[in-house]
Amino acid sequence: MGERLHEQPTPDTILQTGLAFWPAKTLLSAIEIGVFTELSHGPEPFDVVSGRLGLHSRAARDFLDTLVALGFLQREGDRYGNTPATDLFLDRKKPSYIGGILEMANARLYPFWGNLTEALRTGQPQNEIKAGGPGLFEALYADPARLKEFLAAMTGLSRGANMTIARIFPWKNYHTFVDVGTAQGDLAVQVALANPHLRGVGFDLPQVAPVFEEYTRTLGVADRVSFISGSFFDDDFPKTDVVLMGHILHDWDLPTKKALIRKAFEAIPAGGALVVYESIIDDDRSKNAFGLMMSLNMLIETPGGFDYTGADCAAWMKGVGFSATRVEPLVGPDSMVVGIK
Amino acid sequence: MGERLHEQPTPDTILQTGLAFWPAKTLLSAIEIGVFTELSHGPEPFDVVSGRLGLHSRAARDFLDTLVALGFLQREGDRYGNTPATDLFLDRKKPSYIGGILEMANARLYPFWGNLTEALRTGQPQNEIKAGGPGLFEALYADPARLKEFLAAMTGLSRGANMTIARIFPWKNYHTFVDVGTAQGDLAVQVALANPHLRGVGFDLPQVAPVFEEYTRTLGVADRVSFISGSFFDDDFPKTDVVLMGHILHDWDLPTKKALIRKAFEAIPAGGALVVYESIIDDDRSKNAFGLMMSLNMLIETPGGFDYTGADCAAWMKGVGFSATRVEPLVGPDSMVVGIK
Repeated sequence: MGERLHEQPTPDTILQTGLAFWPAKTLLSAIEIGVFTELSHGPEPFDVVSGRLGLHSRAARDFLDTLVALGFLQREGDRYGNTPATDLFLDRKKPSYIGGILEMANARLYPFWGNLTEALRTGQPQNEIKAGGPGLFEALYADPARLKEFLAAMTGLSRGANMTIARIFPWKNYHTFVDVGTAQGDLAVQVALANPHLRGVGFDLPQVAPVFEEYTRTLGVADRVSFISGSFFDDDFPKTDVVLMGHILHDWDLPTKKALIRKAFEAIPAGGALVVYESIIDDDRSKNAFGLMMSLNMLIETPGGFDYTGADCAAWMKGVGFSATRVEPLVGPDSMVVGIK
Repeated sequence: MGERLHEQPTPDTILQTGLAFWPAKTLLSAIEIGVFTELSHGPEPFDVVSGRLGLHSRAARDFLDTLVALGFLQREGDRYGNTPATDLFLDRKKPSYIGGILEMANARLYPFWGNLTEALRTGQPQNEIKAGGPGLFEALYADPARLKEFLAAMTGLSRGANMTIARIFPWKNYHTFVDVGTAQGDLAVQVALANPHLRGVGFDLPQVAPVFEEYTRTLGVADRVSFISGSFFDDDFPKTDVVLMGHILHDWDLPTKKALIRKAFEAIPAGGALVVYESIIDDDRSKNAFGLMMSLNMLIETPGGFDYTGADCAAWMKGVGFSATRVEPLVGPDSMVVGIK
């Protein structure tokens, strides 16, 4: 009987998941307020850190201790300090900062996801578009400062996968690549850094050029990685051995996805490759929860975008003429789908 | 060198926590839409379930498969069904339903937590009070239907702790108890069911009486557990051997907390006990993240409420005259603090 009781279902996971917006918002507010940047010079006593951050006395201790209990701060005596991970990834002044994507999640996605139920019933986006505003990309590309932040945020999110692609793809078989929708250019940079024989191109809208060129110069690959401006809707892709598309296809509807895959096919020679990567959903659609939720995020953010399985993408590639395809895991929820012409 | 790389901090936990409002809102929308109630008769094919729930074709498959990947639904072939836990706890028609608290989280707390940063800077609540509306409790107690839902939600949240208190507290030493702020009365009911020699009282505002009396009748303890109406601010507590207060003290500021503990002291004889329970924070304030976030929730919801450690509560008890105190863990994040007069 005692044994039996332990086999009963418990509500713990349900309650923990249903209230998971508490730890999420606590961390997002900490990034917004600049907690980890403030503590990047070393641990500080409670009075100093709460005063500098402008925390109200009613809230300060609970807030900082929550960050300790969640594992994002360390406390010794009365001094609060960053953990190795938050110091590396959440100090705005370090190039390894990945908080940009979470600043965006805090300012935009958190409230938009509040309307998930309406999105599920209507199929309509719940972001700025809903109020008749410009789409996400139109708004971003119209504002150089916001665009630079967004592009850096994308780098933070994709760095691990970029470094993995640079290492595991058989680059020795190829001489050139084009990264379509390159943003800040981190994928192109990582591939070039790990493979000194390659020359590459970042392809994106002209507004991206200064951000990309600053980044490739800083990382020391400007001599081998250049920028070509163009629209992946209106222009053909530059000719190359390998086309890369990271976090691009999921933004768009099925006809657009297929059109972009066709353009990649046309840009490469026989034996050339297309590498598509993002949080590719597992073929059974039962394991990669992040990939499935990213697809719900595309529902919230775009009129027709969705994420997809490796099998879906391989079928689209075959449909435009690719002769062989394979799916390979990268890091975390990300995989790449490779098509060989 | 390969070994070293594995010791580098990774951003995984940061990204996963920062975006944890995705799984939270997916589950909350599923409860709102009634997914688990709809599937309580058994698994249904995709077309049937998505049609009955009114899900848009663009969103339906991603939404249901996300619930599969998060472990809240099971899928065999094309049929979606509840898991044992979601069938037991998230089917609205079952008495074991705990979704009420999550319906409230979805409708109220999710948007209010969107203003956490403002709460941290101002120390002011971010719920209906902010817009000049009535406080949480005033609004609830003014609407019998909402009140009944809220009281049932509280039961769902506290059932496990209530059953534990009924079992581990030395009830054989006592004859009577009063549960202060009893709500639906689940703590009183569980204590009475597990200890047939006890007689108990639920003490709460008069609006609660019909909900309490229906519940004690249904659970078969109405002959030993009765209702006394009163306000724990304006009235003394009924005399008794043991006073219980679950999820009460954290709603209020420090002077009110101490006043309530004093009233409990005055209601019991020498040797009598006060049992305070909720998500008591560990004395080091570094482990019970849920208890600390519950305190931030009190910041969002009340003008002066906060959660506290076992040592805090023991000190307040000693301050009004209790001779001995102890802290005992219950289930999950909950503990009880016992004071002996």
